[in-house]
Amino acid sequence: MILDFLFPKEFDFFTLFEEQVNYAVQAAGKFKEIASTPGLIEESSYQAIQHFEHKGDDATHAVIDQLNKSFITPFDREDIHALTKELDNITDVINTMVGRIKVYKIPGGDKHLMEFSRVIEESVLAVAKAVKGMRVRKNGTKAVLEHCVEINRLENVGDAMRDAVLFELFESKSAIEIIKWKEIYQDAETVLDICEDVANVVESILVKQA
Amino acid sequence: MILDFLFPKEFDFFTLFEEQVNYAVQAAGKFKEIASTPGLIEESSYQAIQHFEHKGDDATHAVIDQLNKSFITPFDREDIHALTKELDNITDVINTMVGRIKVYKIPGGDKHLMEFSRVIEESVLAVAKAVKGMRVRKNGTKAVLEHCVEINRLENVGDAMRDAVLFELFESKSAIEIIKWKEIYQDAETVLDICEDVANVVESILVKQA
Amino acid sequence: MILDFLFPKEFDFFTLFEEQVNYAVQAAGKFKEIASTPGLIEESSYQAIQHFEHKGDDATHAVIDQLNKSFITPFDREDIHALTKELDNITDVINTMVGRIKVYKIPGGDKHLMEFSRVIEESVLAVAKAVKGMRVRKNGTKAVLEHCVEINRLENVGDAMRDAVLFELFESKSAIEIIKWKEIYQDAETVLDICEDVANVVESILVKQA
Repeated sequence: MILDFLFPKEFDFFTLFEEQVNYAVQAAGKFKEIASTPGLIEESSYQAIQHFEHKGDDATHAVIDQLNKSFITPFDREDIHALTKELDNITDVINTMVGRIKVYKIPGGDKHLMEFSRVIEESVLAVAKAVKGMRVRKNGTKAVLEHCVEINRLENVGDAMRDAVLFELFESKSAIEIIKWKEIYQDAETVLDICEDVANVVESILVKQA
Repeated sequence: MILDFLFPKEFDFFTLFEEQVNYAVQAAGKFKEIASTPGLIEESSYQAIQHFEHKGDDATHAVIDQLNKSFITPFDREDIHALTKELDNITDVINTMVGRIKVYKIPGGDKHLMEFSRVIEESVLAVAKAVKGMRVRKNGTKAVLEHCVEINRLENVGDAMRDAVLFELFESKSAIEIIKWKEIYQDAETVLDICEDVANVVESILVKQA
Repeated sequence: MILDFLFPKEFDFFTLFEEQVNYAVQAAGKFKEIASTPGLIEESSYQAIQHFEHKGDDATHAVIDQLNKSFITPFDREDIHALTKELDNITDVINTMVGRIKVYKIPGGDKHLMEFSRVIEESVLAVAKAVKGMRVRKNGTKAVLEHCVEINRLENVGDAMRDAVLFELFESKSAIEIIKWKEIYQDAETVLDICEDVANVVESILVKQA
């Protein structure tokens, strides 16, 4: 229409955020499977994680491109930028961790890593709910904030898990095993940190809209 | 008053920055005590550091909340954001380092870590003076810049200390000890890096006001 | 001229970017020499890297100072800030890596590190071409984007190299050697990551100007 220029439509950024978070959810689910499957990681699982990471990158680039083209945005430009970057980070760090699992020949079946993978999946699912809840402006706020509280709680759970597991690791393993596992457990905890970063961005967006 | 809307008062951000930096000073002081006390870290010292970290977080959130509500700010919004984040980082990294000291069962009394703790306290005290000096706009600038120069000097001291201590570490310890101590010494040096980041933000604020 | 205030001249930021990238190119070249020279690193080579790092810092400060003074900029202020920071990062990380080579007594002549040093030099040279190409607005865009594609390709090459080399490292070396070399190889790969960060900033600037 000729007046489109005068009445630009607001682009639906939420669809892209939901796409990003869906890749994070799929990566977290696949990581849970990898952590619990005995033996070395299967090539198909490794490829699946890389696929989610690439698709997540594409979605991030789509957000940035759209941001550069849009005059009207659903919330502050810098917050859109921060949200899309942090969502991308979730899938990136899962990918980094799984890459290390492959290179270090970390076998599946470690009970600590399995526990981490369950907490990570819970946290990423809460991130997905928070992001999806942002569409529903009025009545959704309370539910979104509750998901953010849950994400913060799981980050604290992860901190305590990492401390306990490192404590045990230094008591019981050889130096080379310590080098490998320490990095993997810290990666796992970093995923939870990034989920918390997403929750912080979401909360800050809601505060500004209140 | 009915005209408050027309003449909004500038919020006193400096009080919050001073609160933040006071927690960093207290954390640095407690860390010096931890580093010099023989034996494993006492639970009360560990709790004290966590307390300063939590209080520092609260002060940071107060700054961000206030920033989102304020129309008038004493300097650029992005600089307020950067300053509060970096001040928070000081206490965060001290907390991370002390957490590792607990998990790795690092005993107090190591002469290198004691030396680091003294340099850290000096640097954080210089940060406190620089931040407190920012209130006094006109005549304070020169003094503030001198504190920033001192913070930069201490960061260089820390770099040299870390290099010397890592050099010695690799010559004299077992692999497991190297893994533990290397991380602790690098944390210590990171605290000094962050003090320098604060000094850079402060300098950049003063330059813009000149 | 009296009307200078009314018609401020645009400062030539490109000259400063080119200066920064030239220090990165020189640091990358010196690093290639260090990696291939048998025996411990020579003091003069170590000093040369530190010199490039200091000069790079000076150029970065000059960009930031100029940015704070300029009303007119060739592209978005935040992009100028990001570009200068990332260019500075290249030289910084090369300096950090070389510092570790000295402290860990890493001898020259390792075939993997030599291969990394060649890929790093290629990538930094592509960064230099991309940055220099940004001056030529109209016809240069295609060439600049081709350099960015090349930088991305080399980052992927580096990822694969790091994975292969870590895999081999864990199979063949003692724990202490693993600790040292792992960090050096990861530094080397980080240099390529930062070159990619520069390419991303450059691409985003070109997209906005299109």
